[in-house]
Amino acid sequence: MTHQSWWTRRYGTAAPEIELPTNDVLDLLYRHRSVRAFASGEVSDAAVTAIVGAAQSASTSSNLQAWSVIEVRDADRLAELARLAGDQEFIRRGAVLLVFVADWARTSELARRQGEPAGAVDYIESTIVAFVDAALAAQNAVVAAESLGLGAVYVGAVRNHPEEIAELLELPPGAFPTFGVVLGHPDPADRAGVKPRLPQAVVRHRERYRLPDDGEIADYDEAVKRYYRSQGAERGWLRAAIARVRDAASLHGRHTMRSSLERRGLSSR
Amino acid sequence: MTHQSWWTRRYGTAAPEIELPTNDVLDLLYRHRSVRAFASGEVSDAAVTAIVGAAQSASTSSNLQAWSVIEVRDADRLAELARLAGDQEFIRRGAVLLVFVADWARTSELARRQGEPAGAVDYIESTIVAFVDAALAAQNAVVAAESLGLGAVYVGAVRNHPEEIAELLELPPGAFPTFGVVLGHPDPADRAGVKPRLPQAVVRHRERYRLPDDGEIADYDEAVKRYYRSQGAERGWLRAAIARVRDAASLHGRHTMRSSLERRGLSSR
Repeated sequence: MTHQSWWTRRYGTAAPEIELPTNDVLDLLYRHRSVRAFASGEVSDAAVTAIVGAAQSASTSSNLQAWSVIEVRDADRLAELARLAGDQEFIRRGAVLLVFVADWARTSELARRQGEPAGAVDYIESTIVAFVDAALAAQNAVVAAESLGLGAVYVGAVRNHPEEIAELLELPPGAFPTFGVVLGHPDPADRAGVKPRLPQAVVRHRERYRLPDDGEIADYDEAVKRYYRSQGAERGWLRAAIARVRDAASLHGRHTMRSSLERRGLSSR
Repeated sequence: MTHQSWWTRRYGTAAPEIELPTNDVLDLLYRHRSVRAFASGEVSDAAVTAIVGAAQSASTSSNLQAWSVIEVRDADRLAELARLAGDQEFIRRGAVLLVFVADWARTSELARRQGEPAGAVDYIESTIVAFVDAALAAQNAVVAAESLGLGAVYVGAVRNHPEEIAELLELPPGAFPTFGVVLGHPDPADRAGVKPRLPQAVVRHRERYRLPDDGEIADYDEAVKRYYRSQGAERGWLRAAIARVRDAASLHGRHTMRSSLERRGLSSR
């Protein structure tokens, strides 16, 4: 893929004049799109083994590996999870759901077995480490899955009802569901494409932070509108982004996350 | 690479009998190691452009893109950042430091320009979304860098003095440094290898969570000891992990993270 072609698709604008390096791995990363339309077909145990091996190969804070993944294949459990996670049909349609877990339960239990306390788990620094560890692992899992020709989509809605999901997956205190990743075979008839991102100059700052100009955001809003129009929808970026930050109600129930974390043993103080 | 060879290196144990899929992308992911010993040599602007393009290609919650990256190349700023981030020499030695930022400052400012409030930013759900977005992006950046033959290492110690680092990088309220990624050319004389991870069966749970047996952890502790011995060091995993969760003091100053987040506009309520 020439750098012009991925750039145009990823940013919805003309590529810069400079020559950019290319290789097959970059191509795979640039091509990423979330897949929510799945064809039938299994994802084998061997494939998930390779994918989790890739996830475990990601960096982890001080090698603490403060994450776990629950592989869900059981149809009843998938249906229940789909219901709890925004009643999203594609969760039922995927071949397997990986629920990534921020996991201090394991290390706390190992400490307990040695008669040691685990008070550091109560701090927000620990919550952050576990969520970041889970995210680094999950992103490697998604890249690995896509390298095998599979489609993937993150499911943040696992945090809509985290306590119910924790119970369903029998998570002990200190283990908290962060997000899911649905894996399956992409439906070849699916028309969804690569969604354009903010201009690189808006996200990449040199030496010091810079807020974007209105013009940069307006251009991006147009690029997003062009993309959605190609999908038969009328939708931009700015309005949706502003609506998301407005107030507690914008969080669609997730304004209670702090008490959910606390009740599940991650007080985040 | 056969699956036996990556498995043995990654887990420090014999590979399972089943046939696992392989490809070049998986090989790259399995080979990951943190590089802290850098040779001289630039990382070009074009390389960082390709790397940030890969980072932006990662999934992001509702396309909110609640992250930014500050590219630091200035020697004085690098030295100051290295001092604040645990006085780690390899930060000065890398060619470029990418500081990943949990960023609600941008969307809040865009809301302000439209006369809209941004109260949802105050909730821990928003803090989590931004840290996870930053982590997904950063992991793609690391994979992209490694595909170009570069070495990378995460710097969690950016959170040792997040408020000072936020000032140094002129981050506005709502933008918080999450971690850094140092990029550079790996020193060919470096002997550091692939660090073994917990057995896959400990991290990957089927349908429901399972705490590990003592035997599984003892075996892993041995694998880690074998690895460190090959590096000329005497060190296991269990003791270090338990020491990290003990109490507030185990966090080496990061027990104050919540007030740092609050003072920087991410109250995490």
